[in-house]
Amino acid sequence: MGLFTKDIETLDDLFITKLQAIYYAEHEIAEALPKMREQATSPELRAGFEQHLTETEGQISRLERVFDMHGSEPRQTTCAAIDGIIKAGDTVAGNIADRDVLDAALTAAAQMVEHYEIAQYGTLIAWARELGREDCARLLDETLAEEKATDEKLTRLAESRINRRAETRAA
Amino acid sequence: MGLFTKDIETLDDLFITKLQAIYYAEHEIAEALPKMREQATSPELRAGFEQHLTETEGQISRLERVFDMHGSEPRQTTCAAIDGIIKAGDTVAGNIADRDVLDAALTAAAQMVEHYEIAQYGTLIAWARELGREDCARLLDETLAEEKATDEKLTRLAESRINRRAETRAA
Repeated sequence: MGLFTKDIETLDDLFITKLQAIYYAEHEIAEALPKMREQATSPELRAGFEQHLTETEGQISRLERVFDMHGSEPRQTTCAAIDGIIKAGDTVAGNIADRDVLDAALTAAAQMVEHYEIAQYGTLIAWARELGREDCARLLDETLAEEKATDEKLTRLAESRINRRAETRAA
Repeated sequence: MGLFTKDIETLDDLFITKLQAIYYAEHEIAEALPKMREQATSPELRAGFEQHLTETEGQISRLERVFDMHGSEPRQTTCAAIDGIIKAGDTVAGNIADRDVLDAALTAAAQMVEHYEIAQYGTLIAWARELGREDCARLLDETLAEEKATDEKLTRLAESRINRRAETRAA
């Protein structure tokens, strides 16, 4: 960002700026997921992180296709939001010894990442449509559907823990 | 966080840690919203930020009631995630001169904040239920409903811009 210039002049510039931010974020997430899988105990949670890593790699390729459709080179721009989200998750996880509690914290951290992605892709799709680029919007929408499905899966994991606890209390 | 100790031992500790983080985040959001309102041009967006500020103040009071129900003093703990989200929004907004483009960026920044809150409150509600605290869950659920409504309102604002652009192109 220049000190005396405003680099983002049009909605198209803004679209590319956000595309570069989420392209950076997906790479950071791909780096964080194997560590989260290592820390997790529940087999469902570990499998979930494993599957999301595969999906993330596909989402990175999809972003490269959107850059290409737009006639731009794929480029990463640091995003303070995803840096902060990953840091917050690490700080809490590093402070927990109990495996069940750690699984709960990791699930929460993953849902925070999902919601970051849901917000980013939702915005990118709206801007692609505003720019008349239905082709880019459709491709980004495939990723958004995956992110929402992952978030729902994590919610079901959290709920199954609630039910197990309730049964323990009732027994 | 101690270097050789793990401070979070139980799910109840984790619940309080997250409650302190969102209590901090709501205060940071209450501080950011008037600045966002000042930067916005669209009357609907300005009114939206105004209304969300009032809601945020109510959500802070609701969190204080949850702390009280839990027998804890309200306390803020820094959250790197909300710091990063606000910083990312500021960086992009500071780089835009055009008023329409700035409105689009501010709407996106606000939706990122909403999704952070949706993720945090969703997790807090699940943990409250897991801890058998339906009373806390119900109160937090009132806030979650407000956050989701705000996010939907922001989506409608973004969509109304898309429709206006499409009409301009068709004319």
